[in-house]
Amino acid sequence: MIEITGKHLINGQWVNSTAATFTSANPSTDDVNPWTFFDASADDADSAVASAHDAFRQLRRKSAAQRAALLNAIATEIENLGEQLVHAAMSETALPQMRIEGERGRTCGQLRAFANNLLNPISPVFIDHAQPERQPLPKGDSRLTNMPLGPVVVFGASNFPLAFSTAGGDTASALAAGCSVIVKGHPAHPATTELVSHAIKRAIDICDMPTGVFNMVQSTTPQVAQQLVQHPQVKAVGFTGSQKVGDILNKLTQERPIAIPFFGELGSTNPQFILPQKLASDAQSLANNQVASMLMGHGQFCTSPGLVVVQNSDGLEGYLATLANAISEAPAGTMLTKGIAQTYNRQVDLLLSNPSLTHIASGAASNGGCQSSANAFSVSASDFIAQPTLQEEVFGPCALVVICDNDEQMGEFALSLTGQLTASVFGSDDELLDYIDLVDDIAQSVGRLMFNQLPTGVEVCHSMQHGGPYPASTAPQTTSVGSQAINRFTRPICLQNMPIALQPAEIKDGATHPQVIV
Amino acid sequence: MIEITGKHLINGQWVNSTAATFTSANPSTDDVNPWTFFDASADDADSAVASAHDAFRQLRRKSAAQRAALLNAIATEIENLGEQLVHAAMSETALPQMRIEGERGRTCGQLRAFANNLLNPISPVFIDHAQPERQPLPKGDSRLTNMPLGPVVVFGASNFPLAFSTAGGDTASALAAGCSVIVKGHPAHPATTELVSHAIKRAIDICDMPTGVFNMVQSTTPQVAQQLVQHPQVKAVGFTGSQKVGDILNKLTQERPIAIPFFGELGSTNPQFILPQKLASDAQSLANNQVASMLMGHGQFCTSPGLVVVQNSDGLEGYLATLANAISEAPAGTMLTKGIAQTYNRQVDLLLSNPSLTHIASGAASNGGCQSSANAFSVSASDFIAQPTLQEEVFGPCALVVICDNDEQMGEFALSLTGQLTASVFGSDDELLDYIDLVDDIAQSVGRLMFNQLPTGVEVCHSMQHGGPYPASTAPQTTSVGSQAINRFTRPICLQNMPIALQPAEIKDGATHPQVIV
Repeated sequence: MIEITGKHLINGQWVNSTAATFTSANPSTDDVNPWTFFDASADDADSAVASAHDAFRQLRRKSAAQRAALLNAIATEIENLGEQLVHAAMSETALPQMRIEGERGRTCGQLRAFANNLLNPISPVFIDHAQPERQPLPKGDSRLTNMPLGPVVVFGASNFPLAFSTAGGDTASALAAGCSVIVKGHPAHPATTELVSHAIKRAIDICDMPTGVFNMVQSTTPQVAQQLVQHPQVKAVGFTGSQKVGDILNKLTQERPIAIPFFGELGSTNPQFILPQKLASDAQSLANNQVASMLMGHGQFCTSPGLVVVQNSDGLEGYLATLANAISEAPAGTMLTKGIAQTYNRQVDLLLSNPSLTHIASGAASNGGCQSSANAFSVSASDFIAQPTLQEEVFGPCALVVICDNDEQMGEFALSLTGQLTASVFGSDDELLDYIDLVDDIAQSVGRLMFNQLPTGVEVCHSMQHGGPYPASTAPQTTSVGSQAINRFTRPICLQNMPIALQPAEIKDGATHPQVIV
Repeated sequence: MIEITGKHLINGQWVNSTAATFTSANPSTDDVNPWTFFDASADDADSAVASAHDAFRQLRRKSAAQRAALLNAIATEIENLGEQLVHAAMSETALPQMRIEGERGRTCGQLRAFANNLLNPISPVFIDHAQPERQPLPKGDSRLTNMPLGPVVVFGASNFPLAFSTAGGDTASALAAGCSVIVKGHPAHPATTELVSHAIKRAIDICDMPTGVFNMVQSTTPQVAQQLVQHPQVKAVGFTGSQKVGDILNKLTQERPIAIPFFGELGSTNPQFILPQKLASDAQSLANNQVASMLMGHGQFCTSPGLVVVQNSDGLEGYLATLANAISEAPAGTMLTKGIAQTYNRQVDLLLSNPSLTHIASGAASNGGCQSSANAFSVSASDFIAQPTLQEEVFGPCALVVICDNDEQMGEFALSLTGQLTASVFGSDDELLDYIDLVDDIAQSVGRLMFNQLPTGVEVCHSMQHGGPYPASTAPQTTSVGSQAINRFTRPICLQNMPIALQPAEIKDGATHPQVIV
């Protein structure tokens, strides 16, 4: 058993410099968990960045294979934490054991996938060989590769204590890119953060990597977060969280003397468009599948389907009746934190008091505390379009059915959409072809467009795009999940007439990296 | 001969709605050129964006081959403008005929290179085939491709009236990406802008593309520029110009309710590092080559080498003597505009009055007007590091030799550098290996790193990276020259379980596009 000390991990040492402390709560019982954590000081945050900065300069001389070994070792060491990690995460999130174990598998799988991509690269480097005889001017040898940006700050996310937190996708892709990392742990699951940091420290030691490659600070104050994203030696930020906090941090990064990229995932309602013929033929199964998807993780997935878009046509009545029935049978669920439960309940109250909305059904009543009930509402498309606040994500098990009068209004609705991580369109091939303009207009707002599938479940694979126009992402040209996530933390560099002895391995003639050679 | 009317090109029509006019001047003679141009109104700018917005929705249904045909047709039509274009550009920029003809060749070559890349794509799309039997959950078919962002605003640049202006790299890559374009012409060469716009209009007509795919407005006021970058239907901006103007426009794009990418190239001093042994052995040829490079285009290339970094060691005396000699023999030259000449002369006066600097030499005296003389100065590295304003680009034929005491100070200087488009390091292979840490530190600040070559001359090729940390670029993860420039104007989209009938050509199984298939 690892002793939880509540300290920060800076340059390979567990340290604390303040007396201020905080604790985490068990959302299932509302009890305080039996650990105490230190609130980082400004000096702690500075030390963490200095450590990452020094380590970055050493990391440059490590090979892709050495970075891959580190990622694989982190995965192994996370698994070696065993039951202690599972129980800590359960105590801090109220997520069930199977979910935590599944998320651990996803986290380790993701680390290993990035390692595998380093060993078996899939994206090409480009080589233009010299043409010394070219007229009127000779052409130099030039080779395009990627270099890491530098120290990266990663914020742990409340809804994925493993897969989007300490050793989650942002950390894994930053390390894969060759960047050093400073994690700001999420204050709702600090013990989970500390345990995973232990695993990373062990992996660093085993792999003989620079100790400052990974640093972790815990804090409940906004000051440390703001300090980290403004630090001149920090070169990029990864964030998954609320639009409110994300906007503040993003603004700080853009107002720096030299702006840095802020890769923020801030919210998405993931609209589900059901075409009229499909609604007429499959109303019942569509409604049941919608509810099953929106209840996954009690609606706390970033891809939870919060909007359904239909027309006032055959099947609608049956769809709404089935939806009402399924929602009313939904059990109450415990949310990740009391704050999240309170925000959800406040948003639902606002919807209940909105005269434009019809309340379709509620699930089983909650027992207060961190619990909440499922909910579904309907609204006309014209009322929805007239009230932009209805586009804001309700984080939790709530669906809003938007009812359009006709094709034209469905198209108008699609064009009014804010940015989304995903959208789905349900229809037969023939019906989809009839609605090709609608499909194109929906695509304009999303990072991932699905057909006849629900959005929950984000594959870690080469073709994944987890991002989309704002507020789904603050950087829609990048993804936070999948192989391409590494590109967030590198930039291209052209190396011209570089002596072979100095060339990085991947751009040498005949390297195993896929090469486009001219 | 095409009649220059001074009007804007909006949705395929030549229009004007104001009485306000402006003219261009011939920098060689300071005479007013014989054409009058209309200053766009806010309505004109709005109409141009509306036209581009409508055209964009039609453009989505055009194939890559159709976009390639448009790019090729634009190149042909620019060539068909013949002598009229060359003479207009010469009258508005004072650039010599051979330079304008060369730049026309580069511009048309660039358009054709993007067309070729559309027909013979080099970057992979990623396909994950479905695994319906996978345990514990099936995997869906997903395919990653890129989609265009939407209407793009392009600002013409003063120093490349063809290659970085109306049909330059930004326009070519935006059209290649499938975006529509609104060009804001540079007020120093409006006749050149109008002629090239004619060529683009002809190409659009010949290729039967939507008329609003390309729009052009002329203006001398900042209001139109500011309005364009803030317009909600504009989705990205391409800009090459001064740091002052670029910063203002970039800030406006970031303060929009939904920020958009601003691809700005704002300035670079392109430091030339000469290692001690190299300086000792090749001082004379290094100095002569430096002067030849910095005099190209009278120092008005974005990659003009404005800084030389040496140590106070063997060969320095000879280097400085040869440099002084070569500079003193440099003829005066005409700059692109009177404003550029005035700014250059003001900056040189500041350097002359700076007590930390030693004036090495001036070239032949200018005759006033738009002319300027070449200049070279030296400064100690410690004085340079202590005066951050010395890092600002002096746009024109001016070089500053930074003299370091030793290796350590050269390393300190490298770490103090702001972002650069390019840097060069001169040394034998053995000496370069001895300075590998220095090389790595220099790489941290640049988009293109050269060895034993001067930076002027930017190839349009697959491996080019024309960008770099701020202020070289406001988007260092992208390039404004070369095949990858197209990526600025697209974003990835994952298409999941998409019926084959709806799939875009490049992600269909067996498409000719290079595919990474899992």
